[in-house]
Amino acid sequence: MRKILKLIPYFGFVFYLSIGSAGAGNSHMENQIKDVLSQYQTALNNSNVDAAVALYAKDGVFMAQHSKPAEGLKAIRTGYENVFKAITLSIEFSIDEIKELSSGWAYARTQSDGFVTINQTGDKAPEANQELFIFHQNDEKKWQIYRYIFSTTNPPRA
Amino acid sequence: MRKILKLIPYFGFVFYLSIGSAGAGNSHMENQIKDVLSQYQTALNNSNVDAAVALYAKDGVFMAQHSKPAEGLKAIRTGYENVFKAITLSIEFSIDEIKELSSGWAYARTQSDGFVTINQTGDKAPEANQELFIFHQNDEKKWQIYRYIFSTTNPPRA
Repeated sequence: MRKILKLIPYFGFVFYLSIGSAGAGNSHMENQIKDVLSQYQTALNNSNVDAAVALYAKDGVFMAQHSKPAEGLKAIRTGYENVFKAITLSIEFSIDEIKELSSGWAYARTQSDGFVTINQTGDKAPEANQELFIFHQNDEKKWQIYRYIFSTTNPPRA
Repeated sequence: MRKILKLIPYFGFVFYLSIGSAGAGNSHMENQIKDVLSQYQTALNNSNVDAAVALYAKDGVFMAQHSKPAEGLKAIRTGYENVFKAITLSIEFSIDEIKELSSGWAYARTQSDGFVTINQTGDKAPEANQELFIFHQNDEKKWQIYRYIFSTTNPPRA
């Protein structure tokens, strides 16, 4: 089951995030994690390294396709700098599920669709990925990205 | 950091498996999950659909690169049938970390290296991936793959 939720008005535009029902009701945890995912989507679409890195736990790990795992904030920063140097994203996340595993631990499974522009050539191509996030609450009870990996769902290039 | 652990004495022999340290001590949970990962490696290298599917929870999800998420055992089976039809793997997993999140929930982060043979052409190429597994214990306290995603760590094809 999917529904469309209005999330945040932003500079006169309205961003919509298509959100799959996670089965349970919209708990406080679920809403907070949806908010992190929404902020992450915005960071990606704005090529905003600072905003992306700020969503991670200090011992977070970013597992980008075509890269070795980036462990810790310094490596994560370099990871996003490399991504945004290479490509510009225009994508939208949909949430397949959000599940709390215990106090302070949860995961989210998402998909994202849109377009990628190769900065060097200006070529634009469809982009579609699936993502798995593990979230952890820090000492201030803020949900942060603890582990994050994505992979394309498009067929291999011929 | 890597260490060699004695795993199981078996018919008078001692088997050794090279295992990346997960930081914490070798709990029962950790050894059981290492055993599932070892069985999964064997299933992949033998193109054994039954053995791979048997490691999943009945409501498991397999997120293979270049495919949409396969939800539930029937879709997971089709996913592995498609993978093994296309390629033959010869890979070895190394474990970056295993962490229990709560009673019955854990995750493992791994990397795998080796070779892939394209069945249609016979072409052989280096293969390197990173993986994130979420494990869940079933009613019989058996650790099963609940969510699993991988992506290549090799550079994009030119």
